[in-house]
Amino acid sequence: MRLLADAFGGDNAPLEILKGCAAAQKAYGYEITLVGDTQKIKACAEQEGLDLSGMKILHADGVFSMEEQPTALLKAGRDSSMAVGLRALAEGRGDAFVSAGSTGALLVGATFLVKRIRGVKRPALGAVMPTADKPFILVDTGANAEGSVPMLCCFAKLGDIYMRRVLGVESPRVGLANIGTEASKGDTLRQETYRALSEMEGIRFIGNVEARDIPLGAADVVVADGFTGNILLKTYEGVAKMMAGKIKAMFKKNPLTMLSYLGVKSGMADFRRTLDYKQYGGAPILGVQKPVIKAHGSSDAYAFQSALRQAAMCVEADVPEKIREAMQHDAAQ
Amino acid sequence: MRLLADAFGGDNAPLEILKGCAAAQKAYGYEITLVGDTQKIKACAEQEGLDLSGMKILHADGVFSMEEQPTALLKAGRDSSMAVGLRALAEGRGDAFVSAGSTGALLVGATFLVKRIRGVKRPALGAVMPTADKPFILVDTGANAEGSVPMLCCFAKLGDIYMRRVLGVESPRVGLANIGTEASKGDTLRQETYRALSEMEGIRFIGNVEARDIPLGAADVVVADGFTGNILLKTYEGVAKMMAGKIKAMFKKNPLTMLSYLGVKSGMADFRRTLDYKQYGGAPILGVQKPVIKAHGSSDAYAFQSALRQAAMCVEADVPEKIREAMQHDAAQ
Repeated sequence: MRLLADAFGGDNAPLEILKGCAAAQKAYGYEITLVGDTQKIKACAEQEGLDLSGMKILHADGVFSMEEQPTALLKAGRDSSMAVGLRALAEGRGDAFVSAGSTGALLVGATFLVKRIRGVKRPALGAVMPTADKPFILVDTGANAEGSVPMLCCFAKLGDIYMRRVLGVESPRVGLANIGTEASKGDTLRQETYRALSEMEGIRFIGNVEARDIPLGAADVVVADGFTGNILLKTYEGVAKMMAGKIKAMFKKNPLTMLSYLGVKSGMADFRRTLDYKQYGGAPILGVQKPVIKAHGSSDAYAFQSALRQAAMCVEADVPEKIREAMQHDAAQ
Repeated sequence: MRLLADAFGGDNAPLEILKGCAAAQKAYGYEITLVGDTQKIKACAEQEGLDLSGMKILHADGVFSMEEQPTALLKAGRDSSMAVGLRALAEGRGDAFVSAGSTGALLVGATFLVKRIRGVKRPALGAVMPTADKPFILVDTGANAEGSVPMLCCFAKLGDIYMRRVLGVESPRVGLANIGTEASKGDTLRQETYRALSEMEGIRFIGNVEARDIPLGAADVVVADGFTGNILLKTYEGVAKMMAGKIKAMFKKNPLTMLSYLGVKSGMADFRRTLDYKQYGGAPILGVQKPVIKAHGSSDAYAFQSALRQAAMCVEADVPEKIREAMQHDAAQ
């Protein structure tokens, strides 16, 4: 398993990235190539006493800034660690690429450097999210601001393959995020997509799912245009953060409440674990030739380690090949 | 203050509605008219030992079912408690109308029986929602499945007036729900609405707000097309419900955790109160000639009482008149 890691993407790069890579190498024995400025990587490791032996470094001069236009990755940013890493992936110098850098740029790079799988209208950005019970995948979460029926149908297929192959769900329930459960609900895009998904072979379409029921586990794959998916994902994060903050304040109020905390300490740890996006790794970019994972911008070592693990699972499950087969099957019909 | 209450709307009608009306009459001295089948209302009150003296009853034969098409309210459903109540409001036999019945039907009825205010493109369904700090209003939350720039601009104005007049926020921060803060973010509708809101007089437009920041209090008025607003509202509800369930299970685990609960009991009550939609009443239908409030379908007596209080506040603040003035001002320009 040869993984390429963008050492200079995200808020906590390079230190947390290097730590995450070291931990993943130790835990799973991955062959990791760090992409970025060799001097800086070595200096950071030395300063922090990190052991990078056994890891390769693929030198890249620059860092792609969050402020730049995503498309700049292909020209002005072509020497950045992200662009160099993506080209290395395309050339077969690694099996998957993980970056905590700019989402937009990573999408542009995945699409134009790693390239789409034939038949995929638009690569999508999935997000594996927690529910009361087991996780689900939301596709798309913002790769595409505008949506169309063929795009949403493609998202359904991409999410279905991910859940089957990577998370081992045998027959994933595919639902369309909508404002009501009846077929007639929502705007024209939703009504037409509902019809198209109903007729699609090879997926288990369970109809519309209301946003209210999603956190309670209504579907294994939630299909949405990128705008809607992004709103859903970020509302999820925001409400969870707001509530976690309230609970924390509640326990910190006085000596009695602090004492009470001790009694539910392990329960609170479970609670946090359930809601921790870090355990699921990052957001897979689905529909490109090789696995590309977007790790959360604020990834710490643990989150980045999880993203590497997720990348390895996509490689093991051969997700791009499964997507290729599904697209060929569609084209043949 | 003369309030009309749909005695037969919602999952817990008529009992919880009658209880809520009795409580509101006692607490605030409202003059309440119950709309619905006289016999059934009296029988229910008698059976439960409820005192309805001082309340009027406006007889209506039928109940508008949740399963019917909303537009049926105007024809087949014209004798339902909802339609009779809305006509009574239009005729001036009350100052505001509250129903926990079908949202779609109430919107149809408000639009065609109570009628739009001149200049309002489409009435909107607002929702007053909690944040870590103080509440905000989200407009629209599903009255309109498709959106346009003039509609969204109108929603901004409606939300602004509600926050100023009913919740006493002096200079409400108006934000556009979007997938990023920059002006260029989102689909065409968002980009064009951003420009239009930037140029709009009389509101304090603070730009795009990301869904993640909304629960943390990023804006006092959040503008969204009905589809997006509905997704946002329901994700909010779903995540809060999922987390509340997890916390409850955590405290119920064993004797020690149950003991711990006693230490944070008042804190948990505060926590629940913050997140309780019931305290804010229902969803105001904004842009029609008189205040119409949609109470939550699963309203209990307390929730319905809050919705009645909210209706009274809309009457006191003369919300429709303020909207009328704002629209005239716009038309004059």
